[in-house]
Amino acid sequence: MKDIRAGVYGGSGYAGLDLVEILSAHPEVELQFATSNTYAGDPAPGTELRYIPAADARPGDVDVIFLALPHKTSAAMAKAGLEAGVKVVDLSADLRLDTPEAYEKSYHSPHPHPELLPAPYGLPEINRAELQCADVVATPGCYPTTTLLGLYPLLRFGALRDDAPIIVDAKSGVTGAGRKPSLTTHFAEVYGNLIPYKTGRAHRHVGELEQEAHKVSDAVGPVIFCPHLLPVDRGLMSSIYVSLNDSMSSDQAHDAYLEVYGGEALVDVLPLGEQATLKHVVKTNKCVISITPVLDRYAHITSVTDNLRKGAAGQAVQNMNLMFGLDETLGLL
Amino acid sequence: MKDIRAGVYGGSGYAGLDLVEILSAHPEVELQFATSNTYAGDPAPGTELRYIPAADARPGDVDVIFLALPHKTSAAMAKAGLEAGVKVVDLSADLRLDTPEAYEKSYHSPHPHPELLPAPYGLPEINRAELQCADVVATPGCYPTTTLLGLYPLLRFGALRDDAPIIVDAKSGVTGAGRKPSLTTHFAEVYGNLIPYKTGRAHRHVGELEQEAHKVSDAVGPVIFCPHLLPVDRGLMSSIYVSLNDSMSSDQAHDAYLEVYGGEALVDVLPLGEQATLKHVVKTNKCVISITPVLDRYAHITSVTDNLRKGAAGQAVQNMNLMFGLDETLGLL
Amino acid sequence: MKDIRAGVYGGSGYAGLDLVEILSAHPEVELQFATSNTYAGDPAPGTELRYIPAADARPGDVDVIFLALPHKTSAAMAKAGLEAGVKVVDLSADLRLDTPEAYEKSYHSPHPHPELLPAPYGLPEINRAELQCADVVATPGCYPTTTLLGLYPLLRFGALRDDAPIIVDAKSGVTGAGRKPSLTTHFAEVYGNLIPYKTGRAHRHVGELEQEAHKVSDAVGPVIFCPHLLPVDRGLMSSIYVSLNDSMSSDQAHDAYLEVYGGEALVDVLPLGEQATLKHVVKTNKCVISITPVLDRYAHITSVTDNLRKGAAGQAVQNMNLMFGLDETLGLL
Amino acid sequence: MKDIRAGVYGGSGYAGLDLVEILSAHPEVELQFATSNTYAGDPAPGTELRYIPAADARPGDVDVIFLALPHKTSAAMAKAGLEAGVKVVDLSADLRLDTPEAYEKSYHSPHPHPELLPAPYGLPEINRAELQCADVVATPGCYPTTTLLGLYPLLRFGALRDDAPIIVDAKSGVTGAGRKPSLTTHFAEVYGNLIPYKTGRAHRHVGELEQEAHKVSDAVGPVIFCPHLLPVDRGLMSSIYVSLNDSMSSDQAHDAYLEVYGGEALVDVLPLGEQATLKHVVKTNKCVISITPVLDRYAHITSVTDNLRKGAAGQAVQNMNLMFGLDETLGLL
Repeated sequence: MKDIRAGVYGGSGYAGLDLVEILSAHPEVELQFATSNTYAGDPAPGTELRYIPAADARPGDVDVIFLALPHKTSAAMAKAGLEAGVKVVDLSADLRLDTPEAYEKSYHSPHPHPELLPAPYGLPEINRAELQCADVVATPGCYPTTTLLGLYPLLRFGALRDDAPIIVDAKSGVTGAGRKPSLTTHFAEVYGNLIPYKTGRAHRHVGELEQEAHKVSDAVGPVIFCPHLLPVDRGLMSSIYVSLNDSMSSDQAHDAYLEVYGGEALVDVLPLGEQATLKHVVKTNKCVISITPVLDRYAHITSVTDNLRKGAAGQAVQNMNLMFGLDETLGLL
Repeated sequence: MKDIRAGVYGGSGYAGLDLVEILSAHPEVELQFATSNTYAGDPAPGTELRYIPAADARPGDVDVIFLALPHKTSAAMAKAGLEAGVKVVDLSADLRLDTPEAYEKSYHSPHPHPELLPAPYGLPEINRAELQCADVVATPGCYPTTTLLGLYPLLRFGALRDDAPIIVDAKSGVTGAGRKPSLTTHFAEVYGNLIPYKTGRAHRHVGELEQEAHKVSDAVGPVIFCPHLLPVDRGLMSSIYVSLNDSMSSDQAHDAYLEVYGGEALVDVLPLGEQATLKHVVKTNKCVISITPVLDRYAHITSVTDNLRKGAAGQAVQNMNLMFGLDETLGLL
Repeated sequence: MKDIRAGVYGGSGYAGLDLVEILSAHPEVELQFATSNTYAGDPAPGTELRYIPAADARPGDVDVIFLALPHKTSAAMAKAGLEAGVKVVDLSADLRLDTPEAYEKSYHSPHPHPELLPAPYGLPEINRAELQCADVVATPGCYPTTTLLGLYPLLRFGALRDDAPIIVDAKSGVTGAGRKPSLTTHFAEVYGNLIPYKTGRAHRHVGELEQEAHKVSDAVGPVIFCPHLLPVDRGLMSSIYVSLNDSMSSDQAHDAYLEVYGGEALVDVLPLGEQATLKHVVKTNKCVISITPVLDRYAHITSVTDNLRKGAAGQAVQNMNLMFGLDETLGLL
Repeated sequence: MKDIRAGVYGGSGYAGLDLVEILSAHPEVELQFATSNTYAGDPAPGTELRYIPAADARPGDVDVIFLALPHKTSAAMAKAGLEAGVKVVDLSADLRLDTPEAYEKSYHSPHPHPELLPAPYGLPEINRAELQCADVVATPGCYPTTTLLGLYPLLRFGALRDDAPIIVDAKSGVTGAGRKPSLTTHFAEVYGNLIPYKTGRAHRHVGELEQEAHKVSDAVGPVIFCPHLLPVDRGLMSSIYVSLNDSMSSDQAHDAYLEVYGGEALVDVLPLGEQATLKHVVKTNKCVISITPVLDRYAHITSVTDNLRKGAAGQAVQNMNLMFGLDETLGLL
């Protein structure tokens, strides 16, 4: 008899499919429903369930709902869930920014439910205390997760020059662009190609990234963030270039990472000289990080995740584990 | 001063894009317009032109129009073009079948302009005489082109057993499914996958294939045709398995191919022991064929084309060359 | 305390890597060593072990050895293992053919240890009784596994015409060609390509395939087998085309598959109208089959496996489970 | 009757194959031989020639030799060619660095023929005057070509801060790693992966890059160069991140590029807001560049080439055209 009854909203998108897969194998979870308006009636892969329309799902019947929904739709459902006394793990952008103003700046429309802000930001390796037993958690985006984990030890040690930019050259597999068909995700447009998009400071995740970085350290230069669409299905790499201040030489950086992440089950720091690659993480719930010192005061950090796992569904379940006081890695290793 | 003014309808689909590329480099063609309702106003890649809406194009201003349009839309435009005294190269399915009944059987709706049927079938290596100086030509589909060229020598020599099926296991790159976004062509659905579809006798091209095979030979068994979606952007392979009758042993088959295609500039027959692969033909206007004798009376034939070239745009231009009495390979080698 | 101590010879090839991964997560197995002459000293991924040279491994210390070795090398090690009183799961070709003559015909050199022949052929869904508690098992090749499972119900019902060929158009991911670098497996040669090889009856697996088919049924026509190298890393599809005799119409075939495989945990038969694709099986230990009736007496069967799982390492573990009297699917679902 | 007789050494590597393809279609070139020790006797694709062993080629019979050879082998052949009075286009690294000391630093062995240094550096858009009518030219590597073209306008205007690093996050298709089989280029290792290598300042091309940058401008910060192996066959992207000094705001940068490259036939600068992708350049001889201003004083530049064309063979032919006083783009557009 399993203890936690769960429901997934948006169970047929790519993050939703991974959620369904992880939850249906989780030792403490009984997946009760998965919604999909598009595929209602079809079997939910890997389960005995069939998708139901979102309108037919009853949040009150479960202990926790996962929201893998478009932003704006998600906030309303989060509110409904909380009002029904159900824990809420939101995978959308709706609860990630702390203020309605910040939300409007990044998403160009008023926040649908400002009363829900701020919510705990679900990056356990940085923010664990706030997540334990929380009722609602905003699961971070794939780019911020991967990038913040790649930067966190340097932020925590205050090792970055505040007058130098943090350069993030990021590359994401196509599932990061969602399952809704578009020319952007057409096989023949992506195949054999590499496509930068929304570079500089135009991507919506920049605000989230800077908000969380500043919570850890006062001294953070401007983030320059350039994502690329990579011709693979899953996997995300943030290649991070930083300038260190006088408090830390580049040769000391690797030790800082080992120290900070030594006890983390879902973050691996590679030995000096090895480089993190997508194959390290695809279909796992881990973040893997490599650091290369460059000259005295520069560092090249490669941080990789599976964008649908540690970058979405895996981290959502990690958050759920914390919210219910379970072992944080249950169902994830 | 070039001699032939041409217009392309449907110039932003994958076949249309290749048509625009080939025609704009053709020594005797002046490309006057390319239509695209979706991309009207955008530059047509590789040219000085911008796409115009189909409604703004004036067929009367050119000498030939190419129709890379959806079936049913195409027939009406073919009619309009012919009435305006313009030659018509149709790349849709509308003019490929000889009778309205055959059309309705394969396309499940009445033919929009039965008065246009039959039209010459534009497979020059089989049907050249009918195409020279023709006013309208139906350019074959990519599967029938590749398969019929792979079978033709055996059909012409009457070498097939009429009581044995012709097995065609075909594989096509994703551009064959068109440029309109759909879940079927989403990168993450195709990547790492291989997907059979409409197998047996369900694919629309079966009727066209059998119609043309029967024109060459009385003795043709049933065609079993199983297409697969291949995770590459372009290229089409028909793997053909046949049983030979007493008139030809499998060891004699290769010579038959050499004899039939010896003079063809756009069909290459590989030496015995070599196998045709997609790399032989991608971005060329050729069909490449290999034959492997199996036991006494069976043969395995591999026939490959670029589905957008010899399987569509390249063959359309080959047909145009014939229609205007030009060297058949002009602009294609 | 786990019951079965296991060792893997050839643990750094692709099949070996999957073996190591499956065995190290198997609830009843303690992986004691994995050999690799090339990578001796390196960590065996996903384990606490480091590869050791084959010469340093002591078969006597374990209960079972898996041989993911080149043919000819494997037989000698199988012999050594058996003499040491250890169970042997051989993944090479050395023990698959029943006689030294058959071996020499397919592998063009004398069998290194004819005294080991015949060994039980490890395809549990066909041959389960022989495998239970066996001391040595020859795990079939990926092509024969996938093809025989696709044909087996028709063979068992004697439904095939014996005067018509069985056409097998097969497609394999690149890991099927092994991990040793060669131009054939160079990324740039495979990418965007599709390559037939050893077609007709030239591939070594034809002998194995026909040997096992004839054990099930007297009435089997000649097998025409045409493999292709597919630009994906893993996954194997056998597209099988058969002619049925008077005992079964094509519409009855699907029921035959449901009947034969109804109780099998590792073979799924899809509902009529669905097609088996690589995504059904990649990274699973299953075979998935679809059948399409064509006209009265023909059928198109698509059988798919992960070539490294049900086509190699997964099936090897399934055999081990049987050899030790365990639940056959332990560690595989 | 064509004017220039050419020979290619190393004609079966990937750069050599593209050279053979370009030269055999060049209006002023008669390709006389292509060498390959590995494939001697085989047909050189796309030509009437068969490969000959390097030892059988006679440089004295041609007007120009192209050396697509490993470094160290190439220098000796360059010397032999020059002594025979033949022009030499070297594609190896042997003549790119100006001093034997610089060579030894990057290549870790003494220069085989220091008397050949310095040779003109064959990047025509930067160095055209030195190349016209030269007898020998060192064709740059793919990474330096793409990166230097991406930086050149800022270098020429002296717009870079000399106390800030130049960050180059580069991604190359697998042909950049050569055709010799290795585990690094095995399909199954690359597929679905993204692999950083020799990051920081460890890659051999860093010395060449800095040498040439410093010739254009005194004020250049340290180059941090991080290449990645990309799962595509061809195409190279340098993503460049720079800090501007007070002489130029980020909004002015785009105009600088338009001004510098306005007259260049083989470099395209995209309109502001568009991003350069691999599809812009694959199978062309062009470099395409996009610039994105970031805040006041930063810029993100994306520079793309086909690593085998503008990054190797195409640029070699561009150099040859200049060496013989021909139109620089002959055979390249």
